Amino acid sequence: MTTHGTLGVAVIGVGTMGADHVRRINDVISGARVAAVADIDGDRAKALAETIEGCAAYADPAAAMASPEVDAVLIASPGPAHEEALLTAFEHDLPVLCEKPLTPDAASALRVLEAEQRLGRRRVQLGFMRRFDAEYLRLKKVLDEGRLGRPLLLHCRHRNASVPPYFTDAMLINDSVVHEVDCTRWLLGQEITAVTVLRPAPSSDSPEHLGDPQLVIFETDGGALVDVEIFATCGFGYQVQTEAVCERGTARIGEGHGMLTCAAGRWGGEITRDYVERFEDAYDREVQGWVDATRRGEVIGPSVWDGYAAAAVCEAGVTAQTTGRRTTVELAERPAFYT
Amino acid sequence: MTTHGTLGVAVIGVGTMGADHVRRINDVISGARVAAVADIDGDRAKALAETIEGCAAYADPAAAMASPEVDAVLIASPGPAHEEALLTAFEHDLPVLCEKPLTPDAASALRVLEAEQRLGRRRVQLGFMRRFDAEYLRLKKVLDEGRLGRPLLLHCRHRNASVPPYFTDAMLINDSVVHEVDCTRWLLGQEITAVTVLRPAPSSDSPEHLGDPQLVIFETDGGALVDVEIFATCGFGYQVQTEAVCERGTARIGEGHGMLTCAAGRWGGEITRDYVERFEDAYDREVQGWVDATRRGEVIGPSVWDGYAAAAVCEAGVTAQTTGRRTTVELAERPAFYT
Amino acid sequence: MTTHGTLGVAVIGVGTMGADHVRRINDVISGARVAAVADIDGDRAKALAETIEGCAAYADPAAAMASPEVDAVLIASPGPAHEEALLTAFEHDLPVLCEKPLTPDAASALRVLEAEQRLGRRRVQLGFMRRFDAEYLRLKKVLDEGRLGRPLLLHCRHRNASVPPYFTDAMLINDSVVHEVDCTRWLLGQEITAVTVLRPAPSSDSPEHLGDPQLVIFETDGGALVDVEIFATCGFGYQVQTEAVCERGTARIGEGHGMLTCAAGRWGGEITRDYVERFEDAYDREVQGWVDATRRGEVIGPSVWDGYAAAAVCEAGVTAQTTGRRTTVELAERPAFYT
Amino acid sequence: MTTHGTLGVAVIGVGTMGADHVRRINDVISGARVAAVADIDGDRAKALAETIEGCAAYADPAAAMASPEVDAVLIASPGPAHEEALLTAFEHDLPVLCEKPLTPDAASALRVLEAEQRLGRRRVQLGFMRRFDAEYLRLKKVLDEGRLGRPLLLHCRHRNASVPPYFTDAMLINDSVVHEVDCTRWLLGQEITAVTVLRPAPSSDSPEHLGDPQLVIFETDGGALVDVEIFATCGFGYQVQTEAVCERGTARIGEGHGMLTCAAGRWGGEITRDYVERFEDAYDREVQGWVDATRRGEVIGPSVWDGYAAAAVCEAGVTAQTTGRRTTVELAERPAFYT
Repeated sequence: MTTHGTLGVAVIGVGTMGADHVRRINDVISGARVAAVADIDGDRAKALAETIEGCAAYADPAAAMASPEVDAVLIASPGPAHEEALLTAFEHDLPVLCEKPLTPDAASALRVLEAEQRLGRRRVQLGFMRRFDAEYLRLKKVLDEGRLGRPLLLHCRHRNASVPPYFTDAMLINDSVVHEVDCTRWLLGQEITAVTVLRPAPSSDSPEHLGDPQLVIFETDGGALVDVEIFATCGFGYQVQTEAVCERGTARIGEGHGMLTCAAGRWGGEITRDYVERFEDAYDREVQGWVDATRRGEVIGPSVWDGYAAAAVCEAGVTAQTTGRRTTVELAERPAFYT
Repeated sequence: MTTHGTLGVAVIGVGTMGADHVRRINDVISGARVAAVADIDGDRAKALAETIEGCAAYADPAAAMASPEVDAVLIASPGPAHEEALLTAFEHDLPVLCEKPLTPDAASALRVLEAEQRLGRRRVQLGFMRRFDAEYLRLKKVLDEGRLGRPLLLHCRHRNASVPPYFTDAMLINDSVVHEVDCTRWLLGQEITAVTVLRPAPSSDSPEHLGDPQLVIFETDGGALVDVEIFATCGFGYQVQTEAVCERGTARIGEGHGMLTCAAGRWGGEITRDYVERFEDAYDREVQGWVDATRRGEVIGPSVWDGYAAAAVCEAGVTAQTTGRRTTVELAERPAFYT
Repeated sequence: MTTHGTLGVAVIGVGTMGADHVRRINDVISGARVAAVADIDGDRAKALAETIEGCAAYADPAAAMASPEVDAVLIASPGPAHEEALLTAFEHDLPVLCEKPLTPDAASALRVLEAEQRLGRRRVQLGFMRRFDAEYLRLKKVLDEGRLGRPLLLHCRHRNASVPPYFTDAMLINDSVVHEVDCTRWLLGQEITAVTVLRPAPSSDSPEHLGDPQLVIFETDGGALVDVEIFATCGFGYQVQTEAVCERGTARIGEGHGMLTCAAGRWGGEITRDYVERFEDAYDREVQGWVDATRRGEVIGPSVWDGYAAAAVCEAGVTAQTTGRRTTVELAERPAFYT
Repeated sequence: MTTHGTLGVAVIGVGTMGADHVRRINDVISGARVAAVADIDGDRAKALAETIEGCAAYADPAAAMASPEVDAVLIASPGPAHEEALLTAFEHDLPVLCEKPLTPDAASALRVLEAEQRLGRRRVQLGFMRRFDAEYLRLKKVLDEGRLGRPLLLHCRHRNASVPPYFTDAMLINDSVVHEVDCTRWLLGQEITAVTVLRPAPSSDSPEHLGDPQLVIFETDGGALVDVEIFATCGFGYQVQTEAVCERGTARIGEGHGMLTCAAGRWGGEITRDYVERFEDAYDREVQGWVDATRRGEVIGPSVWDGYAAAAVCEAGVTAQTTGRRTTVELAERPAFYT
């Protein structure tokens, strides 16, 4: 691959998310092509590869990564498969875009953290796509400029219209609130030190075995407080809002906008249906950013450290949820490598 | 009546509007009471008077105004009866709050104008209630402060959910657009010099004999242009919006606000149903302002000159509507008395 | 006093708040007049009374209430003086509008509660003016209609531009958050059972001895959770916002509205400066509602029980604030008298 | 070029707009590359080509189009050069994305129209990028669904912060209002039959020789009325707004949105600075749409007929502007080829 060449990407795992990334690289992203797809379901990989010119299919991720056509790896397999895929990519010294979570728990994340450090340079961009969303970027910029003073509080809302019946309390933290974990760390540049989970009487639309909504509180090492409403069965749409309360002003993103209609006695607009609609541009920008950086020989975006820290906070969050008590976050010391 | 005494008001005409003013003076307004009601339908006057302590009923407005209990007159009878009622009030030298229109045409308005001048001092406040609306007052203040520069254009929207079947094209001008006539003159401090009326293909919800909506254009002697959408059968509610486009910025009132809800895939709020709901506070403030000024021995608010000018512009407007041509406004010279 | 007569009001305490109520009754309210003013500073009372026709001045509240000109009492003296003033009003069997707080603590509030019950009927309307605010009334209506389902969470923001230097942590609860205490109880129709206070690193604009902002959490006997951001030194204006998160939708009040301007690269509107500007209409409606109800021989609005419950929650709040721990609210059983 | 191959694009004219398209094809667009650039300033072409792998430079557009590396042409040269470039592309039977205007006047546009018809199939997509803007697409969808009834009026605002000193009255129509000409025709699916231009006293920030702002009125063959405020020196930013007033409701796009801040007594957001910021996504989507359609062997988007009709309306508009009179639009009959 030359600097100006087209990046050959192996996509590992082509379920819903992986297949969408394949479509994205094919149709939207400039400077990259899907050179290989790998899936534990080899037939699924094969069927998909046949629709793409010059794309090979594999059942084994390691075989895909060994192909000379492959310059970079996008991991979209289920979380438990990430550690092995990452370590294989490290063996081939391939740049990686790894969908969140890094790995399912803090211990395995720590192993990946150590493995990447042994490479001597960063190889992994982690798929926290909100960092590439235009509104979040504007909020980050305002906080960094300091015009409003130091951030004191974040108020976050994270609402889904509905969740599948197998969704659990722990998934509220690990699959949903994990985004607020990363946004808090990124927006404030601070680590989360404790988590508390408060639970109102659940909505009657909340599936059995799920206590929805919940109110999650983070404390940070910079003294900020963050409250997160997670409401996975709100029924009316997908809404992600953040309000930063600073010393001399507030900044808020995620409000409704776009086309306004007046009809039948009401004015207003539509709420986005799901995260695909809300964050489509962010996903495009995330992958384009990864392709561009990789072609320049750089690594950008959230790191393995960010993935490890998110895993550690989520572990504390699930404990807090189960015990009903404020739970402190146990975090390894941050290596100089990641500063 | 002493300066601190309660103002005894005669309400002339107690149809819908007059009866509402009676209720307002009784229940809302400080420092006034309804001392007399007069209506051509004497039984209606009688029935209403019986519900109010110390209130006399009359069929003849002149008799009501002759009562020693009456300190001031509120005229809410139909427009054709205004001239006679005003002249009678002038004979008794009584302060008047006269519902719009002053009189139904410019010629009669001119006669009232001359009669009031013969009194040697202003006695009449005209009922253009928008001048007492909080949002209009804020817009007026911003324009007067000049921070945005000189106003160049006004964009006005005037929408009603529906109108009665007898509503005519001329009533679009005389009953509805007349408010924009007054607001234009008041906000800009300029006279309207020409009117054009443009007509799209009418809405299928527009009653026969009515071409609704219409687009009315004013030109002013200060060089400003004003476009007014009048849409009397829009179906979805009552909306009055004004955007002033100035040299260095714009200011806009009449946008939806109040409570926001998210439900069933949409965010937004309610549109007011009618002018009573939208301008209730303005009516209260208008009448309270009149009572307060009268008790101080003063006259405030829109004058007979404003009523005459509105009548002259509306006459030109109806001609423009009928002929499809730009029509200049014929206006007498403004007496020093009204400057 | 006849049913249709003008209500003679004694205003007890004519500092800032009391003097404003005197102005309100004089200039705004229909059907009432200030018959007496009483203030511990007799000269202040005298000076004010002289500007009002037929108004007597007293240094002793009891003397004012004994006057035959007095039909009703408005208590606006400092909180510690309320208990005695209320008991005196009870002796004269006078209807009372009592500014919040009812009394400074739960024990004294309980004594007033028992005294009013001995009268055999309610005499006191408590001055929680938000219950008369148009937006709060709309929110209450939506919650009561049940179209959005059961309320699960309330998110409240309570921001002041600044506070005087003597303002303390306890005052954050007793003077500011007390309004959210009442709104929570009123909007949800539930009692608050526990309070937790969380504290971020304070703003550098927060005066010494004040840890501002704070995040206060209420739990209710209906299983709802309420988070309140109290930020008394936010600098940019006065903002009171409430979002109710229900099973099938949300409803939000306190958003910016009114005139929108575009200038110098920004669009937007003004934030109200203080509670007087934000709640002026609510105060007017509160006092008019009291006057109207009193003239009909009725008592409306928040009761002595509401004042007692607010005091009990605030006591728990101050304890929670001091100890950093979740604190349960000790509440007497609600007498049938107040249901 | 195979169906799955990368499209080799010749960019004709690499001034500001052309150079931006070169960047876009290089960095943003999937499935295309810049194979050649041509500019009358050969050095400019050369300098740009040297930064792009495999890109040839030409001074002569015809030579660029003759290259075997070129599969498609993007014309971004000044308007007067378009006719010749289009005819040359037709000779090579190359698909074209032609920046607006098609040509500078209706007569030359008609010649291109005839030439394309002789090819027997459409080759040209015209660069009216608003048709690819997400908000315009939503508005189009709502109008087409018919839920709000038939569109009766369009209110359009088109504001620029400033224009260069050489900007003329005619350019207000030909360079700015031409977008509203196309949007009106596209949104309503109707032809414009007459134009009137009204002129208030100009802003003091309007350069000499420019009468800014102006109010342009379109009438359509479907009976709709359209008013367009063109304000090229408004100072505060770039704003493009459209409100469609339909029989049973209205729909509005172009309102401010994104991040909201509260600070220093005001709430609100930023206004976009220029059309690049406002329509960046639309340009990306336009070019990606062109590349995708071309690779499928199709032509999408606005046609040569749309370019011709816009030219004819603009000619009438300039006449209306000069004469101050309502001017009818002379339009050739629409060939079946373009229906």
